[in-house]
Amino acid sequence: MPRVSEDHRAARRRQILSAAATRFARDGFHRTSMQDVVDESGLSFGAVYRYFRTKNDIVMAISLEAISVIETVVRDGVQAGRPVADLLATLPRALLALEQIDERMRLAVQAWGEALRDPALAERMQEGLRRARAALRESIEVSCVDSGVRIDADAAAQVLISIIQGFILQRSWDPRLDADSYGQAAQALISGTLGGAAAGQR
Amino acid sequence: MPRVSEDHRAARRRQILSAAATRFARDGFHRTSMQDVVDESGLSFGAVYRYFRTKNDIVMAISLEAISVIETVVRDGVQAGRPVADLLATLPRALLALEQIDERMRLAVQAWGEALRDPALAERMQEGLRRARAALRESIEVSCVDSGVRIDADAAAQVLISIIQGFILQRSWDPRLDADSYGQAAQALISGTLGGAAAGQR
Repeated sequence: MPRVSEDHRAARRRQILSAAATRFARDGFHRTSMQDVVDESGLSFGAVYRYFRTKNDIVMAISLEAISVIETVVRDGVQAGRPVADLLATLPRALLALEQIDERMRLAVQAWGEALRDPALAERMQEGLRRARAALRESIEVSCVDSGVRIDADAAAQVLISIIQGFILQRSWDPRLDADSYGQAAQALISGTLGGAAAGQR
Repeated sequence: MPRVSEDHRAARRRQILSAAATRFARDGFHRTSMQDVVDESGLSFGAVYRYFRTKNDIVMAISLEAISVIETVVRDGVQAGRPVADLLATLPRALLALEQIDERMRLAVQAWGEALRDPALAERMQEGLRRARAALRESIEVSCVDSGVRIDADAAAQVLISIIQGFILQRSWDPRLDADSYGQAAQALISGTLGGAAAGQR
């Protein structure tokens, strides 16, 4: 086997994920087989298998990129001392910057249902969710100290996760849902409690 | 055909919905046929067909009850002059009071994914969503006037819908998710902007 560069590996991996996102969005996660993904990618079965062994591996790789966006926005925001409300305002837009985002969102919604029937997928999705929730909890705790507010930070993090999940769901149904209006409304709704750009200043 | 009373019709309808919720939760919406629902209900195919012609009719009947709970809580709250934040605190608990709620929530999450592949189901779910969103928008507008806050009420209603959808999703994955902690955190997060029991007073 020839020695391949990291760039080549990354490009190959992206090619597979892109093919998978296309097929999952078109035919549904449940109705798409690994062979369909292989066909769509134009690679050999062995080549695909070297990167991903199952459909769950692929869906998790796609989901984890979205979770990484959330983590990065939130952790960078905490470091920069930005209130969690202001981070929430930018999150929908940051998610939309991902490649093939419409396909990803449709896939995410299908994977949520699939996870109810597949404990292994559920466990991996929960793990991703825990990471995003931990980052949000930390940001909420900092904002609470800044604002002098007491709140159940863990439950509040679950609510903020919902605000992101609901955006993904509503946007997958209606691509006209505006990310900025949504993010600003979320910011306005929680800034009265947790600080950040005040409601009514837009 | 004997003339049946309204009570009898309602009981029969409930028997079918209960059978469907059980099967959908166990085998998945996609993998369950109308015949499976008939078998589970113990009724004849003709009897079931008199009430529901398709699986979509059944899933919509189940979903619309949950949407009615949201509408009722919100509209009663508006009439009673309660801030939207306080209504949000009670909504998760009100949803949990529905029969077979765990089955319903799992079905809802599966139906969200199914709607991406079935325009007729999507249209009916959107209609239900529009009703819940209109009620929430009205409540937000009243709370804005009371609090002297300006906010995009329609986008804010989308965010509050997300808080409910996310509760359904996270609870379907983890039945230990506490409805009261979640509702109170949602209330605390938005009460600073829109009024209601203040954060930190619990």
